[in-house]
Amino acid sequence: MNGAEKLLETLVASGVEVCFSNPGTSEMQLVSAIGNNEDMRAILCLFEGVVSGAADGYARMSDKPALTLLHVGSGFSNSMANLHNARRAHVPLVNIVGDHATYHLQYDAPLTSDVPAHANISSEWVKVSASADDLASSGAGAVQASMQGSGKIATLIAPANHAWEEATDSVRTLPVPASQSVPESNIAEAVEALGSDRKTALLLGGRALRAESLAAAGRIARACGVRVLCETFTTRLQRGAGRFAVERLPYFAEQVSEQLAGLEQLILVGTTAPVSFFAYPGKESWLTPEGCEIHELANVDQDSLTALQAVANQLGAHEEADTTPAAPGFPAPTGVLSPIAIGQSLTLLLPEDAIVSDEAATCGLGIFPATENAAPHDWLMLTGGAIGQGLPLSLGAAIACPERKVIALQADGSAMYTVQALWTMARENTDVTVVIMNNRSYAILNIELARVGAGQPTAKTLSMLDLSRPDLNWVQIAEGMGVPATKATSAEEFHQQFAEAMASRGPRLIEAMVVQQMP
Amino acid sequence: MNGAEKLLETLVASGVEVCFSNPGTSEMQLVSAIGNNEDMRAILCLFEGVVSGAADGYARMSDKPALTLLHVGSGFSNSMANLHNARRAHVPLVNIVGDHATYHLQYDAPLTSDVPAHANISSEWVKVSASADDLASSGAGAVQASMQGSGKIATLIAPANHAWEEATDSVRTLPVPASQSVPESNIAEAVEALGSDRKTALLLGGRALRAESLAAAGRIARACGVRVLCETFTTRLQRGAGRFAVERLPYFAEQVSEQLAGLEQLILVGTTAPVSFFAYPGKESWLTPEGCEIHELANVDQDSLTALQAVANQLGAHEEADTTPAAPGFPAPTGVLSPIAIGQSLTLLLPEDAIVSDEAATCGLGIFPATENAAPHDWLMLTGGAIGQGLPLSLGAAIACPERKVIALQADGSAMYTVQALWTMARENTDVTVVIMNNRSYAILNIELARVGAGQPTAKTLSMLDLSRPDLNWVQIAEGMGVPATKATSAEEFHQQFAEAMASRGPRLIEAMVVQQMP
Repeated sequence: MNGAEKLLETLVASGVEVCFSNPGTSEMQLVSAIGNNEDMRAILCLFEGVVSGAADGYARMSDKPALTLLHVGSGFSNSMANLHNARRAHVPLVNIVGDHATYHLQYDAPLTSDVPAHANISSEWVKVSASADDLASSGAGAVQASMQGSGKIATLIAPANHAWEEATDSVRTLPVPASQSVPESNIAEAVEALGSDRKTALLLGGRALRAESLAAAGRIARACGVRVLCETFTTRLQRGAGRFAVERLPYFAEQVSEQLAGLEQLILVGTTAPVSFFAYPGKESWLTPEGCEIHELANVDQDSLTALQAVANQLGAHEEADTTPAAPGFPAPTGVLSPIAIGQSLTLLLPEDAIVSDEAATCGLGIFPATENAAPHDWLMLTGGAIGQGLPLSLGAAIACPERKVIALQADGSAMYTVQALWTMARENTDVTVVIMNNRSYAILNIELARVGAGQPTAKTLSMLDLSRPDLNWVQIAEGMGVPATKATSAEEFHQQFAEAMASRGPRLIEAMVVQQMP
Repeated sequence: MNGAEKLLETLVASGVEVCFSNPGTSEMQLVSAIGNNEDMRAILCLFEGVVSGAADGYARMSDKPALTLLHVGSGFSNSMANLHNARRAHVPLVNIVGDHATYHLQYDAPLTSDVPAHANISSEWVKVSASADDLASSGAGAVQASMQGSGKIATLIAPANHAWEEATDSVRTLPVPASQSVPESNIAEAVEALGSDRKTALLLGGRALRAESLAAAGRIARACGVRVLCETFTTRLQRGAGRFAVERLPYFAEQVSEQLAGLEQLILVGTTAPVSFFAYPGKESWLTPEGCEIHELANVDQDSLTALQAVANQLGAHEEADTTPAAPGFPAPTGVLSPIAIGQSLTLLLPEDAIVSDEAATCGLGIFPATENAAPHDWLMLTGGAIGQGLPLSLGAAIACPERKVIALQADGSAMYTVQALWTMARENTDVTVVIMNNRSYAILNIELARVGAGQPTAKTLSMLDLSRPDLNWVQIAEGMGVPATKATSAEEFHQQFAEAMASRGPRLIEAMVVQQMP
């Protein structure tokens, strides 16, 4: 058995089930090993940014280590933007990157690059295998490393000769890391803070946004009269009817400052204190009000659920908080196709346990609040700000949860970054409904242009933020990649097309010609 | 005047004319400065891999420094694959990368990443500006660095506050670096080697593949009876009727070994000794025959033209060699649409001074030799092996040479990597005819799978190299991005569509349903 085959056996024995891949010549033994291993599903993506974004979506929804197969430094660099997002999402993700044979590197062949330098930028754990046997055993190490805390990015670099040379050691797996418990002192500190009469909020992030943690936070909120906030960009927020609702922090820094004004204590659970996404001339980057005390109950890697439950118990907070009511019946939206109209259609039509991938950018600002009373669902967001995540993320989520409906709310400019994801959605017949928010612009940048004080824009300035001339035709683009598509120019058309999509299975794209009122 | 405006003035004064861009919030002052500067053309690309690939094409055809505008680490990482290719093409290229304001980095906002670490992987020169004034003066340093030798990648990182703070120094430019002349000893060594009766070849690469250098090499070949070889992947090879023809080294290592067999002396001019693109079990990576002496006349950064002319003069090689004859009249190809049929149509129809961007992968193996008698043209290739270069490269070449016809011969799998280039072709109304070689497969990988000895492939193995299920429809994809497109399923259809494209101006895509005989 060669190193590649032994590595595959090790990964399978370690609980890895799916490989998102875009291989090249240096990975051919690994491709062959996957092709011969019945327990590893292979998902081909036509660009590495799709590979890494899909792996992130898979990991978010499965809590299992997602696996990628990438080709040398150049393939890895194509995956880096979505690895950046995945790292900020704190998910378990293992990259196997093929490189030239060890003895071949000295010749500086055209594709030669410093693969470890690439991997170090994007990963918490990096290793270059030392032999065929080490390749296989390092696979177990990579899986273990990826499962530390909430999840880490682990990258194993596989020189081609270690894949084709004979491996003789037996397959070994490593234990799954224990969950990281919160120190008693953190719990005591939080209990004390919550017992005071100071204005207090919990700020939840990471896995603290799952339903059970939210319920515990709700009990605390009910008992202590504190607010429960949620970080701006969520890895996976469980929300909708029947769930305890959190106040999500907005994107714009000045709005965050307003929302936090008057707070005297902020208790962090699975996240860090809020800061401005970008710097702006003359504005603060740090958004917690001056004098507000910050307490950390749990960092992102710690077991926030157990910690919240312990705090609730110590406070005697046993009564469930009110949860979000289901939306009352209301008529389907009509007229202008605004983000709010889209939100209303979603509220009326989302099936239970849907998964929403939200990279709707400015449109998302309207859709998110408009969907709070929808049937219970998971809301996944762009965690690291590197655009081009939404389509791959929805693809990966659909692979992880084939029985659940996935909706990708997708800004047009960002969609173009990893548009190749549509093809894999079609190939794997994933149940994803993509809604492209076609506003023919990098709308957020038009807003930011004013916010950074860059002066009065000229026509040429604006042309650099504009996606018209020519207009993208998303119906053609999607159908060109095998995804059936329709175009909606009114709220009625959108509602009908979205209803059809929810009533059927398989990939589908709706090009929504949205009309926005800018904030 | 702020730092961004002063930087723009400096770049313009340094001879930079075009900026390929995909900006974000941290570059808004730079966008505004470009918008206000009449001497800098701005080309928006919808993905950073298009930005860097187009900059490469522009630099290859203009010999001027190409400028990119990129957004933080994530935007930069998206550009890295084509920067890798550009670096291997040895072209002058300046990246301006916006980053968070210096004081904002400490907050680890979502998009924060180690931008210098990214830049160091992809650049020969990297600087983070120290102030608004330093930002502007570093622009001059970056341009100068990019013009060293044949061309370098220079990356200037611009913290947002240096762009918006006041710059007070006056604009300063730096002299263009002198060309690097070849030491007399190299010339003497080459003259001596060429005067011997040993079996000798010149191996040309880089700028030695321009027409004047080729003519000098031809005179030497005629006088001394030596062969003139050409590196496999050319930055810019001037070929066709009326030019001295070189023997291009093939891609497959065993074929290179065969071609070099028996050589006793190899004289390198603007390139390095040939090595295998990948390693293969049991095969050599180093391809020069054992015992063959290697002499370096000029490295890639040195003035190979003057060196070749000096060698020719010292050898008394004044007579011009025979040049490639124009193709005799022959009928348009009919029947099966093979790569050779495509090459025949090109030979009959290419206008004089056309530019061909060849990322046709396996199809290119047939088209290249079939076009040697076409009208004189420039042939640009994938220099670094990172696929997804061809469409952006042709876009940039067309921006550099608006009066010349550009043809992109493009493999389907590689085209998907940077398919967004089509939109910018439409927006800028570039005169590019894209020919997509639709073989529904990563065909090269099917060949490599056997060559690396990865065993008998299963259906699952092959599915990871296969672009069918669903078939990509390139006519729809192109039209969705604003490029008129047609599909050709026979040599007749292709010939007619290609003739129409050559007779008109503007972007155009032909989806060629090629039928290949695999080597």
